[in-house]
Amino acid sequence: MTDRNIRVEPVAGRAVEDQETEIVERKGLGHPDSISDGIAEHVSQALARAYLDRVGKVLHYNTDETQLVAGTSAPAYGGGEVVEPIYLLITGRATKEYAEYENGQVVRHHTIPTETIALRAARDYFAENFPEIDFGTEVIVDVKLGEGSGDLQEVFGEEGKQIPKANDTSFGVGHAPLTETEQIVLNAERELNGSFGERHPAIGQDVKVMGKREGDEIDVTLAVAMVDSYVDSLEAYKENVAAVREFVIDLAGEYTDRDVTVHVNTADDYDHNSVFLTTTGTSAEQGDDGSVGRGNRANGLITPNRSMSMEATSGKNPVNHIGKIYNLLATQIAEAVVAEVDGLREIRIRLLSQIGKPIDDPHVADAALVTEEGVEIADVEAEVEAVVDRELADVSSITQRVIDGELSTF
Amino acid sequence: MTDRNIRVEPVAGRAVEDQETEIVERKGLGHPDSISDGIAEHVSQALARAYLDRVGKVLHYNTDETQLVAGTSAPAYGGGEVVEPIYLLITGRATKEYAEYENGQVVRHHTIPTETIALRAARDYFAENFPEIDFGTEVIVDVKLGEGSGDLQEVFGEEGKQIPKANDTSFGVGHAPLTETEQIVLNAERELNGSFGERHPAIGQDVKVMGKREGDEIDVTLAVAMVDSYVDSLEAYKENVAAVREFVIDLAGEYTDRDVTVHVNTADDYDHNSVFLTTTGTSAEQGDDGSVGRGNRANGLITPNRSMSMEATSGKNPVNHIGKIYNLLATQIAEAVVAEVDGLREIRIRLLSQIGKPIDDPHVADAALVTEEGVEIADVEAEVEAVVDRELADVSSITQRVIDGELSTF
Amino acid sequence: MTDRNIRVEPVAGRAVEDQETEIVERKGLGHPDSISDGIAEHVSQALARAYLDRVGKVLHYNTDETQLVAGTSAPAYGGGEVVEPIYLLITGRATKEYAEYENGQVVRHHTIPTETIALRAARDYFAENFPEIDFGTEVIVDVKLGEGSGDLQEVFGEEGKQIPKANDTSFGVGHAPLTETEQIVLNAERELNGSFGERHPAIGQDVKVMGKREGDEIDVTLAVAMVDSYVDSLEAYKENVAAVREFVIDLAGEYTDRDVTVHVNTADDYDHNSVFLTTTGTSAEQGDDGSVGRGNRANGLITPNRSMSMEATSGKNPVNHIGKIYNLLATQIAEAVVAEVDGLREIRIRLLSQIGKPIDDPHVADAALVTEEGVEIADVEAEVEAVVDRELADVSSITQRVIDGELSTF
Amino acid sequence: MTDRNIRVEPVAGRAVEDQETEIVERKGLGHPDSISDGIAEHVSQALARAYLDRVGKVLHYNTDETQLVAGTSAPAYGGGEVVEPIYLLITGRATKEYAEYENGQVVRHHTIPTETIALRAARDYFAENFPEIDFGTEVIVDVKLGEGSGDLQEVFGEEGKQIPKANDTSFGVGHAPLTETEQIVLNAERELNGSFGERHPAIGQDVKVMGKREGDEIDVTLAVAMVDSYVDSLEAYKENVAAVREFVIDLAGEYTDRDVTVHVNTADDYDHNSVFLTTTGTSAEQGDDGSVGRGNRANGLITPNRSMSMEATSGKNPVNHIGKIYNLLATQIAEAVVAEVDGLREIRIRLLSQIGKPIDDPHVADAALVTEEGVEIADVEAEVEAVVDRELADVSSITQRVIDGELSTF
Repeated sequence: MTDRNIRVEPVAGRAVEDQETEIVERKGLGHPDSISDGIAEHVSQALARAYLDRVGKVLHYNTDETQLVAGTSAPAYGGGEVVEPIYLLITGRATKEYAEYENGQVVRHHTIPTETIALRAARDYFAENFPEIDFGTEVIVDVKLGEGSGDLQEVFGEEGKQIPKANDTSFGVGHAPLTETEQIVLNAERELNGSFGERHPAIGQDVKVMGKREGDEIDVTLAVAMVDSYVDSLEAYKENVAAVREFVIDLAGEYTDRDVTVHVNTADDYDHNSVFLTTTGTSAEQGDDGSVGRGNRANGLITPNRSMSMEATSGKNPVNHIGKIYNLLATQIAEAVVAEVDGLREIRIRLLSQIGKPIDDPHVADAALVTEEGVEIADVEAEVEAVVDRELADVSSITQRVIDGELSTF
Repeated sequence: MTDRNIRVEPVAGRAVEDQETEIVERKGLGHPDSISDGIAEHVSQALARAYLDRVGKVLHYNTDETQLVAGTSAPAYGGGEVVEPIYLLITGRATKEYAEYENGQVVRHHTIPTETIALRAARDYFAENFPEIDFGTEVIVDVKLGEGSGDLQEVFGEEGKQIPKANDTSFGVGHAPLTETEQIVLNAERELNGSFGERHPAIGQDVKVMGKREGDEIDVTLAVAMVDSYVDSLEAYKENVAAVREFVIDLAGEYTDRDVTVHVNTADDYDHNSVFLTTTGTSAEQGDDGSVGRGNRANGLITPNRSMSMEATSGKNPVNHIGKIYNLLATQIAEAVVAEVDGLREIRIRLLSQIGKPIDDPHVADAALVTEEGVEIADVEAEVEAVVDRELADVSSITQRVIDGELSTF
Repeated sequence: MTDRNIRVEPVAGRAVEDQETEIVERKGLGHPDSISDGIAEHVSQALARAYLDRVGKVLHYNTDETQLVAGTSAPAYGGGEVVEPIYLLITGRATKEYAEYENGQVVRHHTIPTETIALRAARDYFAENFPEIDFGTEVIVDVKLGEGSGDLQEVFGEEGKQIPKANDTSFGVGHAPLTETEQIVLNAERELNGSFGERHPAIGQDVKVMGKREGDEIDVTLAVAMVDSYVDSLEAYKENVAAVREFVIDLAGEYTDRDVTVHVNTADDYDHNSVFLTTTGTSAEQGDDGSVGRGNRANGLITPNRSMSMEATSGKNPVNHIGKIYNLLATQIAEAVVAEVDGLREIRIRLLSQIGKPIDDPHVADAALVTEEGVEIADVEAEVEAVVDRELADVSSITQRVIDGELSTF
Repeated sequence: MTDRNIRVEPVAGRAVEDQETEIVERKGLGHPDSISDGIAEHVSQALARAYLDRVGKVLHYNTDETQLVAGTSAPAYGGGEVVEPIYLLITGRATKEYAEYENGQVVRHHTIPTETIALRAARDYFAENFPEIDFGTEVIVDVKLGEGSGDLQEVFGEEGKQIPKANDTSFGVGHAPLTETEQIVLNAERELNGSFGERHPAIGQDVKVMGKREGDEIDVTLAVAMVDSYVDSLEAYKENVAAVREFVIDLAGEYTDRDVTVHVNTADDYDHNSVFLTTTGTSAEQGDDGSVGRGNRANGLITPNRSMSMEATSGKNPVNHIGKIYNLLATQIAEAVVAEVDGLREIRIRLLSQIGKPIDDPHVADAALVTEEGVEIADVEAEVEAVVDRELADVSSITQRVIDGELSTF
């Protein structure tokens, strides 16, 4: 095989699915932290594509620090208004000047309009995902992209297809398969912001889902922003709340046979007419700030029962930023292993980089398994190792799929 | 008649038209200072209308301090791009909360979304006047509208049609008629940004015109930004320069029989391919900042041969802001007098307010005349005074026309 | 006892100390993320104290979103300079207006200068911790504190000593005792920024420590910014690097008998004169942005081997913000249990809140134990539960200690 | 003599001193517009000195666009506080990178920290002039200095002592001597912000003076901000108002024998306890924005009776920025002429540049005279021309004196 440092080990504990209590959270598309993640990642993809189009390779950049400052709003049944706009500051580094050399001479000079690229990406992202937010008047997007340090700018300066070097000593982690509770939490949000949302325009993008399992009882608590222009009255609001609850109960049934209880907008106080009504579909319009890397991990979930990386995945460049690549890759490896190898109840993949080493050769690749009853580590070790090795060799496909927008980072 | 303090006096000197040398300047629509003026005034009108719509009267506001920070660009024949966006900060004060009282009780509370109103006004202004600038990505518009001091907020708090009180001790000045040189300078810019510009999309909005007259020789120097997407080559650029020159020579002939020489983009250096080429039609895209009140006076011109007020007219509220109202009114009075009274070669109107006094009753209204040969001040004094008095009585029409966007402020 | 929902359970797995591999990280005081954490928390404390001083209770606020945008610098042996300042934006919500009522009448109105309070706190924090950074010229601190939503403003509006209600459904987690590797990582940074730093002014505050243990081999990798004005040459730089290495090796010996290897500034390239030299002692001066909640968890560490909460602890109000209180409290409970109860190898405390419920009565308080050999859960369950119960009852001491600056949040 | 194009002409009208009505205004040191002017000019001087120190010549820059956004405050007898800080944005262009060449090779590269230089200059200016404003917490100073257009950067690229070329077609104007009213207005502010202010710490820097003369009656109206920490009560406030009035009446007596009436803070309303009380000594703390070039002309006054230039003098570079140099030079020439040539009642100097021509050779230098009775133009023409010629030849001393801070620009 290869000489990659791959370890396959048992987890001494139980699979998360078998633990007594489990907590899972997902901040939906329109949560202020997720808006920041989404903008950061969309800007990142746009920059990567622009570099490829213009100079044939991805130059140094990093845009993983978007800050959202909430606005103020006056929602009202039938349609309110934004009073003070949301303010969103895109920060980071991006290479603006690039010289092509031939025989030691500059033969062509490129200026890459990184800031206008970033702003266009932000505008497009809002247009696609937040139809109720008017770009430029209900959200002000500002941008401060510095030039980065000289050293880092050289990291991508090498021609050809060779494997990039890790930019840092960092690690990534991935898990598979998702537990029932995780699947419910993840898919509830995706569907509410997907097909259900399309049919129910009153449903805002700011959907937060918290799942809690104690033994075989699953509690799903949702906070769902409603869009006032599609909600004429408190009655209509209540109908939407009920529709969400019913939808999520049905959806949960697809993933579990356990008992599921669903709560929607529990902080509402109908008597005082205090409900989660918004003009834009997100609490960013009134009081809730957000920033990158504070919410979902790379697999779309916050899972305190599982090992997590603190690295923000969104906005980082996908060529050599190990904090991004290894989280996405570890998740992909974990999924590949459980798909291809029988007898596994749970797998956790951890990849630890070493600064300056090729990214396809991690310092350690660590696969921790919970096997099904009657299966020994030794029975599956070689198979697992082979999948890990194959996926590591293919690390650059992660880069490409990120650039193409095929991988979600939050 | 009335007891307004109106004085009619001779000017001992010669009319500007008869002076030996004359200098006149106009910063066109797309000059960074004029962009700031235009945004400030457009925002002001939008706020005034919103207040009238929502609470039936204009509440306290002042938006006369817009600051434009230039971007950077990479213009190129056939079409370049903006590299770093223009940044525009709208500042000022505006009342955001208003309570309606009846019998000492609050019966209705209004929240006026002053910041989103301001941003929408800015967006509309760009869309209408600067088709080459993409709002939100090529220009970032930010807004900081404070609440104003308590005292001033009360100024507009009075119901009914009574005449507002002056907010300051200030003065305004107006002149008529325009000299030939002034007419040429004013109309050259207006036509270039009007019918000529419509036929020649290569002509940017950033047109600066300086007129100089020595005796009977008039020199007109224009700096005209060209829009790169409509200019394919240096040859095409030169053709546009020639077309502008020819157009202005013809136009000047409509206003004067004197000798007129026209210079266009004299700072160009064709040998070094240094020309006034832009991507957006304004130098704000590259290096030229702007702010309110630094350019044209209320009559659209900078006229060092004439008395000028330093007050910024754009962006001020048109209800009680004397620095705005008296400059517009003085100009209107001057024009009315020369239109209605025979025998005048030139008139200058100065209106001096006194803080706290009704705005239709200035501390002094001073009409300085140059009469035509054979006409004495005494011959026209009563007529002039009558016109001045009538126009002062009608001061609130200025307010209305400003709100309706009928009066230009720069 | 009480009726708090406290569960004591075994962890089926091994204690982290006994696991095969372990990864631990700490971002030191001067890391851009930690600067943001520190400012956010210092501002929070200042606001809490100001509210107590002025109105006798803590009003609603939240300042957990500080964003740092890196500057640029030109470090040089003997002393370089900051070229573009660091920009730091403090955002959040804070109550600015407060009315005291008596018998339904407003008897006193308070305006709390939240923004100047925040700026003063930031200035003091820089002065105390970053002697090489000149406030106002090498770092620009800006502030945008909104007013918060009406609902939340009422949360703290209740008089008296009653227990606040949880502001959210969230959870906190704490662990004890720290493993050897964790102790080394935590204390290496603290000492470098403490006594060692005082003796060696060349050591900057930006110290990042990563510990990795494989079996009984511990690797400690440090990135330590050097301050150029105290480093005259590459030789002097190398001497400082060597001194740090030696110091950390010695320090590690206090916490472990395992083999320890220490690496310092491994990304340096002496041949190309590329070293971690700074003017201010932090990489924020050149290229590295930072924000709150992206770095250390409440116990000062990033520990992927352990359960972690994604909640930012720094900057949140310590009265009812459960994301803050429960992380600090869980850590304190874990420490109390291992200090008081014999026979425990490791404990993890998780506290899950329910929005609107008193914070001393969590939805679940979950104590997961690894006992020493020969000790059963049943042997210690009652003791553990008693400590947990006692600490929960005393939750408000957390609030007080946070306000007094006694608890570190990052 | 020389071949400079100098014209000496009569003014057909009367000297301003002899006209029937006269209006003069001065915005004092602490007026928001003047704060902007002062910062812009102080930053300009600091940049010029830094360039000279570091590279031996002044590189291209322009900082004439500072924008001040007012804060909010809660003044109170005995000492109030700033609630929201003043925000001041320094914008402009400044060269940050400079390469020294020898024989076509770069022998040395300079990075000039223009932004930190600007911020230090701002801090020093506040410290020196506004002792009541705490830098960084009561005023936030932000800076956006772009790089300027390539073309302009070359303007200063020439070695040696040769005369710079004009950067624009523009003009400057100067007058002498000052009228009595002008002297009173100018010196009243200077003394209030000078020796009187030192003896009376209650006097804030925000002093606005308006002088109006009708025939032989001079009215002086002052708005003087009082500093609350030095004013314990309304009585104390009134005493300060009275002291100012008395002082200005006395001072006026030094400059005129005409009747002088002095009004101080006429907008005060004691019954409603509405007075001009501030915490910092300037209305910038509460509601009044400011920007460069909106206030005093280069001679420190706003004089609608006289020809004025719209050019902002403050903040422009003093090497080739004709809008600055010619206003200062014209004033200096006018003063020199009246000092040296007998028989003049008034002189106005206008200097018109031509872009690209040496600045000591204006397109026209125009001296318009009012002679004393019995003196003909022909009697003084040669003398006047000689002084004008001599001063033009010495234009570069203006540059030097600006850099040395010897010339006031507002």
